[in-house]
Amino acid sequence: MRIGVLTGGGDCPGLNAVIRAAVRKGISDYGHEFIGFRDGWRGPLEGDTMPLDVSTVRGILPRGGTILGSSRTNPMKIDGGVEHIKDNLANHGVDALIAIGGEDTLGVAKQLFDREVKVVGVPKTIDNDLNATDYTFGFDTAVNIAVEAIDRLHTTAESHHRALICEVMGRHAGWIALHAGMAAGANVVLIPEKPFDIERVCEYVESRFKTRYAPIIVVAEGAHPLEGQMSLQSGELDAFGHVRLGGVGEWLAREIEKRTGKEARTTVLGHIQRGGTPTAFDRVLATRFGLQAIDAVHQGDFGKMVALRGTDIVRVPLAEATAELKTVPESRYAEAEVFFG
Amino acid sequence: MRIGVLTGGGDCPGLNAVIRAAVRKGISDYGHEFIGFRDGWRGPLEGDTMPLDVSTVRGILPRGGTILGSSRTNPMKIDGGVEHIKDNLANHGVDALIAIGGEDTLGVAKQLFDREVKVVGVPKTIDNDLNATDYTFGFDTAVNIAVEAIDRLHTTAESHHRALICEVMGRHAGWIALHAGMAAGANVVLIPEKPFDIERVCEYVESRFKTRYAPIIVVAEGAHPLEGQMSLQSGELDAFGHVRLGGVGEWLAREIEKRTGKEARTTVLGHIQRGGTPTAFDRVLATRFGLQAIDAVHQGDFGKMVALRGTDIVRVPLAEATAELKTVPESRYAEAEVFFG
Amino acid sequence: MRIGVLTGGGDCPGLNAVIRAAVRKGISDYGHEFIGFRDGWRGPLEGDTMPLDVSTVRGILPRGGTILGSSRTNPMKIDGGVEHIKDNLANHGVDALIAIGGEDTLGVAKQLFDREVKVVGVPKTIDNDLNATDYTFGFDTAVNIAVEAIDRLHTTAESHHRALICEVMGRHAGWIALHAGMAAGANVVLIPEKPFDIERVCEYVESRFKTRYAPIIVVAEGAHPLEGQMSLQSGELDAFGHVRLGGVGEWLAREIEKRTGKEARTTVLGHIQRGGTPTAFDRVLATRFGLQAIDAVHQGDFGKMVALRGTDIVRVPLAEATAELKTVPESRYAEAEVFFG
Amino acid sequence: MRIGVLTGGGDCPGLNAVIRAAVRKGISDYGHEFIGFRDGWRGPLEGDTMPLDVSTVRGILPRGGTILGSSRTNPMKIDGGVEHIKDNLANHGVDALIAIGGEDTLGVAKQLFDREVKVVGVPKTIDNDLNATDYTFGFDTAVNIAVEAIDRLHTTAESHHRALICEVMGRHAGWIALHAGMAAGANVVLIPEKPFDIERVCEYVESRFKTRYAPIIVVAEGAHPLEGQMSLQSGELDAFGHVRLGGVGEWLAREIEKRTGKEARTTVLGHIQRGGTPTAFDRVLATRFGLQAIDAVHQGDFGKMVALRGTDIVRVPLAEATAELKTVPESRYAEAEVFFG
Repeated sequence: MRIGVLTGGGDCPGLNAVIRAAVRKGISDYGHEFIGFRDGWRGPLEGDTMPLDVSTVRGILPRGGTILGSSRTNPMKIDGGVEHIKDNLANHGVDALIAIGGEDTLGVAKQLFDREVKVVGVPKTIDNDLNATDYTFGFDTAVNIAVEAIDRLHTTAESHHRALICEVMGRHAGWIALHAGMAAGANVVLIPEKPFDIERVCEYVESRFKTRYAPIIVVAEGAHPLEGQMSLQSGELDAFGHVRLGGVGEWLAREIEKRTGKEARTTVLGHIQRGGTPTAFDRVLATRFGLQAIDAVHQGDFGKMVALRGTDIVRVPLAEATAELKTVPESRYAEAEVFFG
Repeated sequence: MRIGVLTGGGDCPGLNAVIRAAVRKGISDYGHEFIGFRDGWRGPLEGDTMPLDVSTVRGILPRGGTILGSSRTNPMKIDGGVEHIKDNLANHGVDALIAIGGEDTLGVAKQLFDREVKVVGVPKTIDNDLNATDYTFGFDTAVNIAVEAIDRLHTTAESHHRALICEVMGRHAGWIALHAGMAAGANVVLIPEKPFDIERVCEYVESRFKTRYAPIIVVAEGAHPLEGQMSLQSGELDAFGHVRLGGVGEWLAREIEKRTGKEARTTVLGHIQRGGTPTAFDRVLATRFGLQAIDAVHQGDFGKMVALRGTDIVRVPLAEATAELKTVPESRYAEAEVFFG
Repeated sequence: MRIGVLTGGGDCPGLNAVIRAAVRKGISDYGHEFIGFRDGWRGPLEGDTMPLDVSTVRGILPRGGTILGSSRTNPMKIDGGVEHIKDNLANHGVDALIAIGGEDTLGVAKQLFDREVKVVGVPKTIDNDLNATDYTFGFDTAVNIAVEAIDRLHTTAESHHRALICEVMGRHAGWIALHAGMAAGANVVLIPEKPFDIERVCEYVESRFKTRYAPIIVVAEGAHPLEGQMSLQSGELDAFGHVRLGGVGEWLAREIEKRTGKEARTTVLGHIQRGGTPTAFDRVLATRFGLQAIDAVHQGDFGKMVALRGTDIVRVPLAEATAELKTVPESRYAEAEVFFG
Repeated sequence: MRIGVLTGGGDCPGLNAVIRAAVRKGISDYGHEFIGFRDGWRGPLEGDTMPLDVSTVRGILPRGGTILGSSRTNPMKIDGGVEHIKDNLANHGVDALIAIGGEDTLGVAKQLFDREVKVVGVPKTIDNDLNATDYTFGFDTAVNIAVEAIDRLHTTAESHHRALICEVMGRHAGWIALHAGMAAGANVVLIPEKPFDIERVCEYVESRFKTRYAPIIVVAEGAHPLEGQMSLQSGELDAFGHVRLGGVGEWLAREIEKRTGKEARTTVLGHIQRGGTPTAFDRVLATRFGLQAIDAVHQGDFGKMVALRGTDIVRVPLAEATAELKTVPESRYAEAEVFFG
């Protein structure tokens, strides 16, 4: 069998570990061949390939990014996209595809499967907002990076008199903020799922300053205040109602300074949350996903996506990948609120 | 309510996070009081206590070890041990106990509960060998420390011509070796559950040297060769049949040198695997265990132990804690064997 | 002898290591006593003290921040400030002071010495911009934090098509940007000492995108473009001509997007650069500074500041601390420019 | 000009950074060409080469090890070795050599220079025991790895009642043990330069156990007790009088257990000290060494070695590289002894 592999969407530590595991097991245990498609769906769309064998995947396990490159190209939005892909798969003698990516990438995989392309999906979202799996790789790495940063803010918060704000990823779901905030002992955690009351935040900031400790606030990039609290003068909103210019972290700092008279400083972690070597958890998860994906291909179990349930790697229909977003439930946010104040 | 807290057994990153979470929620949400017992069961046995309030637990979340101290004191082996404990709990006005520890500590908790002590358990084992819970805190930290070490060995293995061996914890279960080996791309993983064939290991070592890459072997401290392969001349065995003097890592290095003529070097990670700041995963898990434990106490749900199932924190009978050891199943070891050779 | 210790200015990893070393040696080798003054010069000004002995300094070596607290209080700007300090030193029986701080803190120390206060200085600046010493502690830690962040950006830069910008500390001197940029293989390093040409930067960005690699730019917070390139519309300047709102990193991202049509993303490290545990280099330097400071006090060699020269710890007049700023010389910047393009 | 590059001896984080810097500057600033020789002096001896250009050195800056491979081959011990090298250099059109290595590698470089080979040296020793330079790259990385390990031991030492021993590299010089011990707050530091009194160590261990804190001992692999304290029964000595089987760390643990009745545990860091990504300090130092080396070659300043003096990179005669070993002087060891007890 000749198996194509591609990675789509934003990058995520662990992509290379998935590729390596599938290739290693596919070759040594099943005798399959592999071919890499470059830059997500652009690869099979344009027939852009690269060799993929044991020597290609040597040493990539601990490396962030993806040796296959990535893009957000969507073949469904391109005339004859599906046909181009089918033709290119045929031209390269590809019998089956492993598509590693998020909601968009797997949505395309689902539609290709519906049109008889033999495909298995591997879920990837650094935000951990996919309902079909307990965790996705990359999330644990992102949380650890944020925690290390917030840990560092603590020592400054103890010596100075400034509110310290850390803006982390999470446009639609606050999982990174929730886990990082809880793990690093942040005082306040603000997430997209729950519009925050800037007045309550400022009250807390003021009360905290009466101790010898300055407040530390973790805010997801997609968090926003209660309706009406953010005027167009103080911050520009994008299509989702999120703060744009300078980000919600900058906006928070300005509001806190204005409303409390205390200094506030913001750290914006940005892309460093999705780079670098994956944690052990993410490497094991990604490796096991890769092993399960190649097993699914080998057994002809197509149209499926691999997923983590407890400590088991299972297979679920690809359709589940594009079902409802997994957001932070009230009960989990309530756990973080124990430490608010 | 006045609640006593103790930590028993070997230390483990995350103990302080459990203590902090229970104390913070118990005070702010339920208005309980806390008292710390020092050094595991020695504390209630001898009435050795320390104050435990919001200021005591400030800043301890990211710190390894336990502010309460630990010991392996077993009150069941002491005449009148149970009565001493009951008396001391009464003397200090303690209504309920939270006992954080491994098989031994929770075994005592179970027996005290049978004699009407109100107790809730929190499981702790760095080896992750407890059946009742998907994971225990401390394990993820230990695996990450081992992975970082093995990552470093890779660069040397690529530049030199030596077999590199890393001995990790795991006397009866090979979880740390399995996860660390898989995450760090070790060539060979040796665990207590599966006696290894030293001849096969050496054959692999020799075949590996024919590439430009030297082999990396991860061995759990409790792993051992097939019967008869280790003579008393070459290594002394303890009561469990484990290698004693110098450890199995040292023994492996000597055997490889003797049998293949190649140099071999061993790194013994030892106690650094159980020290230092916990990973984000362990801090979140430990914090959620602490929150669930205080909820159980508050609700009068005694004789239970908190546990992780998937992404949920649940409660199970204390008896489960002392049931069968969770060892590495064949199917999981088979995943690691994909990369052997 | 009874010796007072204080820490002033912004915090810096290594402050606690200085305190610990001075106290440990002062007590065990010389039999001196110590007293801590809180929050920089505010402590002796207001007589706010804390005990300082072997048990106070236990375990603080690896911890960021300062157990003594810090502030920017300047007694020279307060009527009768010097007299208040002298009175409070006398009231607490303090024979000599160790003042740990930057230009401002040591400037006050110098003036107090001129008025017969027995004082020894220990230099501290995370920016490394003090002429009198080869390095100051905290700098190596800040550089390592920045390097780790930029390393992470590399994996994303390799997988995507975005310019990545990392804004680091350095208001008047570009040492952190220079060392971090050189160590992490940044393509462009922008420092306050050398106004940059935004057109050249954008040209480089465009040329870089023609390879498969996206450009990584490290910019010191105090860097600024050539005169006239930054209009008031596009960014507000502060008193030093530095970009204010959103910082120079944000401004760069907007300009690059506008001028090249490519996406650009900024990470602002902010206070995480001055927090957390010090590196080994900073711990050794800070410890040796502390040992040398107590030796100077013991020998009555006042009005001096400790300093690093090569591998030796020496003493120089306090006046040198407040002499000219140490900025990045042309020759050192030229080293970084080798990799520009 | 066509310039050969080779790396010899034990590997050391920073080797790749030297290679990259020399190649990048040599090509972009001077228009030279490069060729890599594999595995130290074996490369030019046997004519084993690899291409070395901008694409070869892309991405290697942060990676440990050496892309050129290494060996301990000594052409001076091979009949006609010098002639083979000269012939191979001529055959490959090589005008000059950059040799990166320790005492042995640079000793060969010196002898080749005496026989009219145009060579420039770059010093490399993880042990930092070279007199001609303030520091060598790799040392700072090794010290940081050891410090991180010892930091972790502290939390266990605080919770248990065991003496913890950490064995670090340093066969003839104790620099790593000295710096790591001082940086990590070890109680006892044992180095090769100063035979230790096992009785004094054990007395200290016993006194330490009377506090709530267990002792932490850092021992260089080349440290040894006073004459007569180590019998042949308890440990085998090698040619230098160092402990062999199991290492001095194991021996210490056994002696402490025997003499004090307390448990003792040893961590042997081994090769993890020389692997993995270099610290910022080492990357900057290695990069600047590489830049200086290519400048020396370009200027025809052969027979020299680059070196660090204060903050400057200078050139010294190659002969200095092989002069006396730089061992820890009494005055530096006295600094560490302040914290002994």
